[in-house]
Amino acid sequence: MNNPQLDTDGRLRHLLSIEGLPKKILNQILDTAESFVGVAEREVKKVPLLRGKTVCNLFFENSTRTRTTFEIAAKRLSADVISLNVNTSSQSKGETILDTVDNLIAMHADMFVVRHNQSGAAHFIAKHVPSHIHVINAGDGRHSHPTQGLLDMFTIRKYKADLHNLRVAIVGDVLHSRVARSEIHALTTLGVPEVRVIAPKTLLPAQVDKLGVHVFHDMKAGLKDVDVVMMLRLQNERMNGAMLPSTQEYFKTYGLTQEKLSYAKPDAIVLHPGPMNRGVEIDSTVADGAQSVILPQVTYGIAVRMAVMAMLAGGSGQVQGGQA
Amino acid sequence: MNNPQLDTDGRLRHLLSIEGLPKKILNQILDTAESFVGVAEREVKKVPLLRGKTVCNLFFENSTRTRTTFEIAAKRLSADVISLNVNTSSQSKGETILDTVDNLIAMHADMFVVRHNQSGAAHFIAKHVPSHIHVINAGDGRHSHPTQGLLDMFTIRKYKADLHNLRVAIVGDVLHSRVARSEIHALTTLGVPEVRVIAPKTLLPAQVDKLGVHVFHDMKAGLKDVDVVMMLRLQNERMNGAMLPSTQEYFKTYGLTQEKLSYAKPDAIVLHPGPMNRGVEIDSTVADGAQSVILPQVTYGIAVRMAVMAMLAGGSGQVQGGQA
Amino acid sequence: MNNPQLDTDGRLRHLLSIEGLPKKILNQILDTAESFVGVAEREVKKVPLLRGKTVCNLFFENSTRTRTTFEIAAKRLSADVISLNVNTSSQSKGETILDTVDNLIAMHADMFVVRHNQSGAAHFIAKHVPSHIHVINAGDGRHSHPTQGLLDMFTIRKYKADLHNLRVAIVGDVLHSRVARSEIHALTTLGVPEVRVIAPKTLLPAQVDKLGVHVFHDMKAGLKDVDVVMMLRLQNERMNGAMLPSTQEYFKTYGLTQEKLSYAKPDAIVLHPGPMNRGVEIDSTVADGAQSVILPQVTYGIAVRMAVMAMLAGGSGQVQGGQA
Repeated sequence: MNNPQLDTDGRLRHLLSIEGLPKKILNQILDTAESFVGVAEREVKKVPLLRGKTVCNLFFENSTRTRTTFEIAAKRLSADVISLNVNTSSQSKGETILDTVDNLIAMHADMFVVRHNQSGAAHFIAKHVPSHIHVINAGDGRHSHPTQGLLDMFTIRKYKADLHNLRVAIVGDVLHSRVARSEIHALTTLGVPEVRVIAPKTLLPAQVDKLGVHVFHDMKAGLKDVDVVMMLRLQNERMNGAMLPSTQEYFKTYGLTQEKLSYAKPDAIVLHPGPMNRGVEIDSTVADGAQSVILPQVTYGIAVRMAVMAMLAGGSGQVQGGQA
Repeated sequence: MNNPQLDTDGRLRHLLSIEGLPKKILNQILDTAESFVGVAEREVKKVPLLRGKTVCNLFFENSTRTRTTFEIAAKRLSADVISLNVNTSSQSKGETILDTVDNLIAMHADMFVVRHNQSGAAHFIAKHVPSHIHVINAGDGRHSHPTQGLLDMFTIRKYKADLHNLRVAIVGDVLHSRVARSEIHALTTLGVPEVRVIAPKTLLPAQVDKLGVHVFHDMKAGLKDVDVVMMLRLQNERMNGAMLPSTQEYFKTYGLTQEKLSYAKPDAIVLHPGPMNRGVEIDSTVADGAQSVILPQVTYGIAVRMAVMAMLAGGSGQVQGGQA
Repeated sequence: MNNPQLDTDGRLRHLLSIEGLPKKILNQILDTAESFVGVAEREVKKVPLLRGKTVCNLFFENSTRTRTTFEIAAKRLSADVISLNVNTSSQSKGETILDTVDNLIAMHADMFVVRHNQSGAAHFIAKHVPSHIHVINAGDGRHSHPTQGLLDMFTIRKYKADLHNLRVAIVGDVLHSRVARSEIHALTTLGVPEVRVIAPKTLLPAQVDKLGVHVFHDMKAGLKDVDVVMMLRLQNERMNGAMLPSTQEYFKTYGLTQEKLSYAKPDAIVLHPGPMNRGVEIDSTVADGAQSVILPQVTYGIAVRMAVMAMLAGGSGQVQGGQA
């Protein structure tokens, strides 16, 4: 069975989900991203790697935040960026997704950044496109959001040199998270020996124990001696009906406060994918505190997206990025 | 009487409608487009012809699809592209169209790509602007959509070398089509000896017989031995009330299936302006079949738009396009 | 007390309001803008001053017109422009303004152009950002819209060489205007000896007499022998309830007609910030007449915005702008 994310030489062809990426590719992306961290600190934040390429942001679901990160990454690579918000246009004229994609390919689009509220949309498009076209999944339903997972791994690697003796806790709404499953997979693949999940039962998927994690329903026990705390966003907008008594109640039990954070190691770092619900899943003193690496995550997110785009377009990881 | 589309030296000044374009200019556009087909196949799909020029997409009616084609074309010519969706902004503050245009000219806009739901909007703007500003009609009501007509001509020329012995059938909703009239005019101007129109009476304009076409109401008779089948989109969103019994009924009688296509010549090509209503005016087996040139149309559409923009900005057709 | 608009060396750090800008800085902006007027008249309207910089249009209130002017200015400086319409996105997910700003800073945004319907929003953001980030106020509620004020000063200086013997009248809805107060301040700072305000009492703020202006309620007396007439837009959309009998009534008393304009000096110039309500605050014969400098205002607006951006990014005013 072919891996749809790799070409026949084993190089990255699409980025659809962290599941299925060999450890070698995962590390190659993270290593490549290192070189792009520096680009953003230059006087001229631009490299010519994607000059004359057309990157299409194909957003079937609105997300200014995610679109912005990919738009910035693509423009710093000197690509031409075309942003399409598809709900309002061709789709309403009855054109199928694949017709939209085929049209953009006929216009010589080189890369699609796909956001959709349905799981598998990016896979569906990737399966359809010819071999010189690349697809990046920018979030599909609850399923996957691999650049988020990658930037989390990159951030952890930046702050915790050796992943082989880390204890990592993922806290919150695992059930509705696009990333929790990918994080678990990535952490395990990269050699993290102990991954914990802390959440109420109602916010855990049925098969969570099969993912090789330790499940906790209590913050005190779950955070004990961890090196990394990965908070999840409470997906209010994805929850139909009342799985939770109230957000205040949630905060009391699972919201990350300085007090609860004190159960973790003193040098533990705190991650959050954003946008934060301050006072719901995380207290502002933690979000803005010394152990928070939430804004560095955003910075590294641009570097990771540039790395993925450069690898897809160039086919290799040794990009140096002279000035554009 | 002056031709508003030409300057005093007979060169293209605006592109408003195919009607009124001399055969020489039509051919010049098509010839210039040839050189841009190659640009899209380069590693770096960019030429510096419009560098430092400001192209304004002035869309009084939303059309992501059309805006995207012009945006891609302008960016590949290295122009700065400004997209304005005008319904939501100044117009709602009571500013007139011409005030909006005058303001953009005062900002040194060089070219307007105009989309409006009212016939004649682009002509109205073109009549108003000073001589160094250029207007391209990107669709005005039912009236005209000349780049669509041009890309169709380009596509036919690509597949059928000699236009002087072709039989072409235009099928479907001629009444509401922005392009049917332009197609007929262009085909006749370029020397196509026989143009047919196939449609139910309710979807034909009153004066259709005066356009020099053969009118058919039956697919079998109309498609007999044609070289080119130009399908029109069923403009559901433009039809008020029920001119049609049902889309299923329409498909049965006028939808292009492999069986109906077999009445045409074996090497007949099938065009469609998109977005397609699969299963309404065209069957998927035809749309995706060997005789379909629907996606090449899209590819050539970018080349044609680049050609028009380059001619308007540069005033001539001998553009070579060295690397940007 | 620090001036938030200046850095410790007295150079422009943010542009938030004209109030608080020293005369030296005001003149420096206007002088710098002179050099950018020429850029827009070049064949290639582009200079590389902001190449590789990321300018974020952060619009919490929609304004295509204003966004377009800043987008054009930034692109002519070769910046990468990211436009965010924030109502529809992160804000609706509950993220605070400062979280949005912090995220964009983490993505290495260099400059924010901020539009908000609340007074003080740009100041609030400016107070928050680190020292290498620059904020431009593109309009905050009724409070301020400094680039509009600056382009008005630039326009007056262009047409009336010596500001020290001018008589200037500001006419109309001073109460709801974003700019009237700034204009008054700027005119006084630049040495204009006589500033008049002409408006009905209901459209004047309570403390208007303390601004050092002469107040008139009658056009004939107020326009007598003035050199400059600055019309204000009647802010229909900001007026709740009926402060005015009717727009016809308003036009009769305060609308600028050729007849009323004849009270001013024969070489008086007429300004309007746009978009105009023709037939409400200004008659078309005046708007389009020989004394109108309304479109030159728009042209100079781009130059002024380029100047401000270049000064903020470069820290000085001696920008020459070789070709990009």
